[in-house]
Amino acid sequence: MNKYAIIVAGGSGNRMGSAVPKQFLLLHHKPVLYYTIKTFLEAYEDMNLVLVLPEEYADLGREIIDAYFDYNRIQITAGGETRFHSVQNGLRLVHGDAIIFVHDAVRCLVSTGLIHRCYEHALQMGSAVPVTIAKDSVRLLNEELNDNEVVDRNKIVLVQTPQTFHSRILQPAFEIDFKERFTDEATVVEAYGLKISLIEGEENNIKITRPVDLLIAEKLLEISMREGVTS
Amino acid sequence: MNKYAIIVAGGSGNRMGSAVPKQFLLLHHKPVLYYTIKTFLEAYEDMNLVLVLPEEYADLGREIIDAYFDYNRIQITAGGETRFHSVQNGLRLVHGDAIIFVHDAVRCLVSTGLIHRCYEHALQMGSAVPVTIAKDSVRLLNEELNDNEVVDRNKIVLVQTPQTFHSRILQPAFEIDFKERFTDEATVVEAYGLKISLIEGEENNIKITRPVDLLIAEKLLEISMREGVTS
Repeated sequence: MNKYAIIVAGGSGNRMGSAVPKQFLLLHHKPVLYYTIKTFLEAYEDMNLVLVLPEEYADLGREIIDAYFDYNRIQITAGGETRFHSVQNGLRLVHGDAIIFVHDAVRCLVSTGLIHRCYEHALQMGSAVPVTIAKDSVRLLNEELNDNEVVDRNKIVLVQTPQTFHSRILQPAFEIDFKERFTDEATVVEAYGLKISLIEGEENNIKITRPVDLLIAEKLLEISMREGVTS
Repeated sequence: MNKYAIIVAGGSGNRMGSAVPKQFLLLHHKPVLYYTIKTFLEAYEDMNLVLVLPEEYADLGREIIDAYFDYNRIQITAGGETRFHSVQNGLRLVHGDAIIFVHDAVRCLVSTGLIHRCYEHALQMGSAVPVTIAKDSVRLLNEELNDNEVVDRNKIVLVQTPQTFHSRILQPAFEIDFKERFTDEATVVEAYGLKISLIEGEENNIKITRPVDLLIAEKLLEISMREGVTS
């Protein structure tokens, strides 16, 4: 079975208060994106990588690949107006029956273990969406102002990536018309009429959106390096 | 208006894989609990502090207070079987009309700014429960196995502490009978028949439950010390 990781890095990084998109910020002297690419390539020897970048950052992306990686396994394509359109562009580079991982470039602490579990699960079930249980109490805000209610927190899960699918599900799903409510790949597949299958994600698989997340990632990376999980 | 902070530290710290409860673990050479107490005492000169500790750790709690704080402003009482019972014990030491902050001892990065906002809001509205919006997509697990659906993440909030109330609300609410579903003070007040009022919490106001949280807290503390927010 072919394996494709579509690494989505469309964000402009405004929340970081920095001109450089988050995926290019440095973590232990290397770009965030370096760690994400490295883990996916290490997960499977036959993993193909499709990097979706804002057009103006394609050159910077190519420089990172040239510096660190075997570029035969990596293709770059341009991001679209929304995440949906970016993934659509990435999917055009996928060939044959495949398991496709769609991953946020800024989740650079993803582990090969999680990638393997997503693969096995998607192979069997058609999809694998990693989630974690909320640690805090959870409340639902109702329509009326100031009205809110507690929700059983064991019923609420927070969604991560890689959202992983068989190509025969993801490719036709992404041929439907775009809707505002498509916030991730799971919502697209559901709109196409299929159920998605959840698996357990990882607490450390955080999304780098604020400056402090970069420092937290640095700390988590130090630990995983010390433990030899990441070499 | 009197001010009481009930610092709840009943947990046995099993998830940390350590024999010592989380609130006594060291963060920059001082116990987690030290930072929590310090911030509440600094927030208001007339803040009274009620520390609810497992009975076997009362001595250790007293040592921390003796070493670092003005013990005239701090009382210690024993924890109960559940959080509800621990807070009930703490409430017995509250006198007169007061604004009462109930706070997780292991949320040691709470800021004086958040404490002030909770106070002002509870003074006006009767309650103030700090919450943050979920950063990830959120899904609701339904009763049926493998059935789940996306929830609008702008409608889901994660609940923090200090959960802050006027004593005329919190004290009678805690006279009702205990129910399993009382996971925090907000759920007790609602069971008593009142609505609670939410305010914006803080991303850094994390709960230390896993070993890695301690390292993250260390990093966040370094930043806030560098910025002079905490002296």
